Amino acid sequence: QQQNDQNQIHVEMINGEMVEDDSDKDKAKLKRKRYIENIVREDPFYRQLKPWSYCSVEEQYETALTKHIHVKKQIEKHGLTDRNDMMIYKQSAFPNETDPIGINTGMFIPTLEQQGTEEQKAKWLSLAYQEKIIGTYAQTELGHGTFLRGLETTATYDPKTKEFILNTPSLSATKFWPGGLGRTSNHCVVVAQLYTQGKCHGIHIFMLQLRSLEDHSLLPGIENGVIGNKFGFGTNDNGYLKLNSVRIPRENMMMRYSKVLEDGTYIKPENTKVTYGVMVLVRSFIVRGAALHLAEACTIAIRYSAVRRQSELTPGGIEPQILDYQTQQYRLFPLLSTAYAFHFASTNMTETYERISKQIEAGRLDQLPQLHALAAGLKAFTTYAGSAGIEVCRICCGGHGYSHASGLPKIYVCAVPGCTYEGENTVMMLQVARYLMKCHRTKQQGKSLSGFVSYIGEPMEKNSRMDDEVSFTCIVKAYKHRAARLIEEAAKQMQSFIQSGSPAHEAWNKSSVQLFLAANAHCHLFCVQNFIDSIRNCKVDSNTSKVLNEVCQLYGVHGILENLGEFMQDNFLTGQHAEYLQKKMLTLFDVMRPNAVALVDAFDFPDHILQSCLGRYDGQVYQALYDYAKMAPMNQTEVHSTYYTHLKPLMSADSKL
Amino acid sequence: QQQNDQNQIHVEMINGEMVEDDSDKDKAKLKRKRYIENIVREDPFYRQLKPWSYCSVEEQYETALTKHIHVKKQIEKHGLTDRNDMMIYKQSAFPNETDPIGINTGMFIPTLEQQGTEEQKAKWLSLAYQEKIIGTYAQTELGHGTFLRGLETTATYDPKTKEFILNTPSLSATKFWPGGLGRTSNHCVVVAQLYTQGKCHGIHIFMLQLRSLEDHSLLPGIENGVIGNKFGFGTNDNGYLKLNSVRIPRENMMMRYSKVLEDGTYIKPENTKVTYGVMVLVRSFIVRGAALHLAEACTIAIRYSAVRRQSELTPGGIEPQILDYQTQQYRLFPLLSTAYAFHFASTNMTETYERISKQIEAGRLDQLPQLHALAAGLKAFTTYAGSAGIEVCRICCGGHGYSHASGLPKIYVCAVPGCTYEGENTVMMLQVARYLMKCHRTKQQGKSLSGFVSYIGEPMEKNSRMDDEVSFTCIVKAYKHRAARLIEEAAKQMQSFIQSGSPAHEAWNKSSVQLFLAANAHCHLFCVQNFIDSIRNCKVDSNTSKVLNEVCQLYGVHGILENLGEFMQDNFLTGQHAEYLQKKMLTLFDVMRPNAVALVDAFDFPDHILQSCLGRYDGQVYQALYDYAKMAPMNQTEVHSTYYTHLKPLMSADSKL
Ligand SMILES: Cc1cc2nc3c(=O)[nH]c(=O)nc-3n(C[C@H](O)[C@H](O)[C@H](O)COP(=O)(O)OP(=O)(O)OC[C@H]3O[C@@H](n4cnc5c(N)ncnc54)[C@H](O)[C@@H]3O)c2cc1C
Ligand SMILES: Cc1cc2nc3c(=O)[nH]c(=O)nc-3n(C[C@H](O)[C@H](O)[C@H](O)COP(=O)(O)OP(=O)(O)OC[C@H]3O[C@@H](n4cnc5c(N)ncnc54)[C@H](O)[C@@H]3O)c2cc1C
Repeated sequence: QQQNDQNQIHVEMINGEMVEDDSDKDKAKLKRKRYIENIVREDPFYRQLKPWSYCSVEEQYETALTKHIHVKKQIEKHGLTDRNDMMIYKQSAFPNETDPIGINTGMFIPTLEQQGTEEQKAKWLSLAYQEKIIGTYAQTELGHGTFLRGLETTATYDPKTKEFILNTPSLSATKFWPGGLGRTSNHCVVVAQLYTQGKCHGIHIFMLQLRSLEDHSLLPGIENGVIGNKFGFGTNDNGYLKLNSVRIPRENMMMRYSKVLEDGTYIKPENTKVTYGVMVLVRSFIVRGAALHLAEACTIAIRYSAVRRQSELTPGGIEPQILDYQTQQYRLFPLLSTAYAFHFASTNMTETYERISKQIEAGRLDQLPQLHALAAGLKAFTTYAGSAGIEVCRICCGGHGYSHASGLPKIYVCAVPGCTYEGENTVMMLQVARYLMKCHRTKQQGKSLSGFVSYIGEPMEKNSRMDDEVSFTCIVKAYKHRAARLIEEAAKQMQSFIQSGSPAHEAWNKSSVQLFLAANAHCHLFCVQNFIDSIRNCKVDSNTSKVLNEVCQLYGVHGILENLGEFMQDNFLTGQHAEYLQKKMLTLFDVMRPNAVALVDAFDFPDHILQSCLGRYDGQVYQALYDYAKMAPMNQTEVHSTYYTHLKPLMSADSKL
Repeated sequence: QQQNDQNQIHVEMINGEMVEDDSDKDKAKLKRKRYIENIVREDPFYRQLKPWSYCSVEEQYETALTKHIHVKKQIEKHGLTDRNDMMIYKQSAFPNETDPIGINTGMFIPTLEQQGTEEQKAKWLSLAYQEKIIGTYAQTELGHGTFLRGLETTATYDPKTKEFILNTPSLSATKFWPGGLGRTSNHCVVVAQLYTQGKCHGIHIFMLQLRSLEDHSLLPGIENGVIGNKFGFGTNDNGYLKLNSVRIPRENMMMRYSKVLEDGTYIKPENTKVTYGVMVLVRSFIVRGAALHLAEACTIAIRYSAVRRQSELTPGGIEPQILDYQTQQYRLFPLLSTAYAFHFASTNMTETYERISKQIEAGRLDQLPQLHALAAGLKAFTTYAGSAGIEVCRICCGGHGYSHASGLPKIYVCAVPGCTYEGENTVMMLQVARYLMKCHRTKQQGKSLSGFVSYIGEPMEKNSRMDDEVSFTCIVKAYKHRAARLIEEAAKQMQSFIQSGSPAHEAWNKSSVQLFLAANAHCHLFCVQNFIDSIRNCKVDSNTSKVLNEVCQLYGVHGILENLGEFMQDNFLTGQHAEYLQKKMLTLFDVMRPNAVALVDAFDFPDHILQSCLGRYDGQVYQALYDYAKMAPMNQTEVHSTYYTHLKPLMSADSKL
């Protein structure tokens, strides 16, 4: 079916490992990925599970636990010891859903590893690895998520018994949201305000046992449950927790950095920046997720648009593939290019993280702030654009996009909380802005900037020299100009508020829209520049390279057109340039059209991950939609029970009751 | 709680009836609305229902039927005979959800009324009114929604038996999506290709009984069921239908306009435009819905933002209401202004529809195309912006926005299919564009245009004379200029393709992005201009008038900034103007801040319609979130059953299985 479409490229690209330097290595990786995905595909266990969209939340949770146990066995059985192999298996087994025990591996264990002393690690780590205890990470409270210093849970040291007393002093201090906290976990690390010797020392982390290892009953003083149903995340029992004078031994405070001695003396940590590393890592995972989610949605919408035929292009002619409508291309092709851009951004972030981690270990922390800002910014930039893009893909599928059969709603509700957790997006963008302002000041003081921010405050051309070719050089210059200008503007605005007497924090808030826009432009520039750099380094045949260049050019061109005012405001781009760009965009649609399906096939998502009747590789969408309908629980009887209880009485009632 | 906020206005405005000419009439309407809403609020029946978000799809459906029966009784009991009264009651009883029997009233009966002969109406109408039969409207098929001429279901006349034979000739011809078709309806009107005397005469409408009135069993040749779970619409059993040579009497074809005589002779209808009226009406309801949904979301997000406190504005100061962050205002205030703009647009549409309906009845059809285009365009414009806006509101609530407790996901999934049904949005915009091109040609031929489109092709100023006041006059001129320019551009582009040899349909498709943008700008202009006109006519006190003017100005200013490139491309606006606009926007945020809560209170949504822990009038959000959590089915036992079946075995298993 898909084969209808001509295909000028042979890209054996894998998302996650797309076309790196070493193509042999790439091929081996692709083979390995497919090998592991095939294990899942061919495992009858997965096929007999009730489809996700027909499960109640309670069934989703139970199914997820069933899967967790099965996954564990299979990973052992197939000897998947490599981290990457395990991740591929798990993603295949939990497509666009979370494992309720996932936080044990994803947050509980890492916290122990990084914040625990050797004794603490010896005591809990192997239990957690073996899942003899199941832990989660309890930070957010009803009243506080973003503002960690505002957390209200207290841990008060009692030197008499050498214990901490954990308390939830108010309703808003109730822990709320932690994954797996509701019914799964029997342990958690709790973030709480440390009080000792009558003084508060800010937030610290404590190990807390929640439930008995004998019978899972709640330990004294603990109230705990799920937070109730959500937009998505049905497989996860996100929970709440109230603590009523719960005593834990002094040894339960994570004491690698800060310490409380037996007598209650508090010892400060030496360096507070060390935890930055983990945040960067987690955010780089989120960027990767944003890229993957958008790529999945594009795969579904573009494949379906090549199968779906509707309306007329030529009067009386056969109905065209809807992908032939220019408006359909206008909505989908820029998103496809965005998925590629985010893929490369995520790859870059992971590589940078690894490089810088080594520097950190060697005690060199100077690159950390830059990386930290980039991670925060890209997290926000990609999750915003990615999740909005998924909905565009869904709406592009017409009515069927709204059915769970399309697979798209599930991707959306899984992707969109990425805008919120691990740092709310607006707050993240403002963090980036703070860093950019710092850079700007540094530059103003005559010092130079290194790395990606070095363009800030540099002298620049006043007008673009773009012509109708719209070269990469001109594209990058335009994005640089825009970001630099917006950063400059924001700095000026702050300055002028301060000069007219506003205190710094007020000037900050009054400039924060401008600051947000500056940070956004900075992240956008990164994605464009990095895309261009990445495909330059790709070792692919000339045809593939040509196609990737087109995709990249579209990303750059469309991004300018979407934000045209910001590029035109100081006349850097003119109306004439805008015309070049508009023409270029339409030309790129034409040249990309024959490769569009191949470009999503290259993401290499197997059908069992997409779980989409519309995005099937074989194009048999109508049969699949029909089969999906047949499976609905309400179709299992010809006459539904509500006929007897509701409709029959309704229809036979006297009209004037 | 909300009372924290100063409030300079006393607007007794109701959504739907906001500030009209006659303020006494308005007050009476508001009183009546509250009276009816109170009946629902105080009815213990609604309070004992299981909350929507804790219901499985099957429970949602059953609850909806239970409600339907209760609603019917209550409407009779309270003597609500006025159409508007009934609507208020129903909206209160089905907040952001659909009644599975709703299509009987909304589509089945109207189709009968408009397309049926007197005999047909006599036969079925009163049965349908009394719900002794329950009908739906079966148009969309697996393979065709937008392109009605492509529908594949056939109705072949057999003169021997004087019957039509209904058939589903292929899988893709399966009827798919009709509301209430899955398990509720026993009748439907089917849209099918009429064949008689060996010729196809295009689509016509037929009455079909689906199920026995005795026992609800399916009649011979009929296969029918629900289409399976969806993103939302859980209360509705949207269904599918396959017909295998189902015979219906000749009298079951809706014969008010077209006819098939006993011998099979086909008689053409006299006028095909008569059905336009209904489409306009339905679309005006959708615009109203878009306005309401966005207003609900704004109410929740803005009230919550006045209660939620997070982070610091002044170092060490108390945590501010998050509504004090400029970035929060930047995301919410323009949406608030959009909700007002859409409200007024919807009011205008309803009024115009009523005015023009009278003209149509008097045989004057000349205004119909203009109204038809406006309805299509506003439907698309408001549902796009409205549903995207709801998600912005949700994300502005941070983590709690993602819980169903916020009420926001329910509003979103109820609103967003408005982009798709009753005319897919992109297709609608292109219809508007087609009309605009026709207007443009008319003008080029030297004829004049009347009504709202009269600005097209008029000579215009080349540069804006906007200053830092940003007057309404300058705002309207800018939007007019933009729309006129984009219409001109699209026409030129089409022209140039045609001149270089493209056939018209190809030129159309190659210009369709440009056409889409032109139509969009046209609709945007309408909303701006109509907002300004509407508040000019409002009879309100001077304070309220001032506030409404500010809201309106923000709508105009923000819309320009969001699409700045389109206003700057031909230098109509300059960088200097952009700066005025940006400053103005920030100033408007400041002046709107104290009235923001009052402005959403003025929408007058009672708590039981919002169903939101975050949007409660009393501001007790944390208690409400906690209570919501407590109600979760999984919290009804301290240890969930999966502990015994899953966790215990997992934790006690040997690590090396
Ligand atoms: C699916 C999901 C899973 C989660 N899992 C976990 C988990 O496992 N463990 C855990 O501890 N937590 C978890 N959370 C909670 C999550 O970490 C928080 O929701 C997140 O940190 C955002 O904080 P908040 O909800 O307090 O948002 P808020 O800070 O209340 O944000 C609300 C609004 O205020 C604005 N705002 C706040 N501060 C500022 C500022 N300084 N400047 C400008 N604007 C501001 C924001 O931009 C936003 O628009 C989860 C949440 C979700 C949705
Ligand atoms: C919640 C819900 C309830 C519904 N209820 C009913 C009901 O009660 N009764 C009923 O009969 N139907 C119902 N429908 C179906 C609905 O009417 C159709 O989904 C709708 O008409 C859109 O048609 P489609 O699905 O064929 O979209 P498609 O036409 O397949 O659209 C897919 C894509 O193709 C593009 N496209 C199509 N044609 C063109 C063109 N000519 N030019 C450019 N682009 C084009 C569109 O822009 C879109 O991006 C319902 C649907 C939903 C989601």
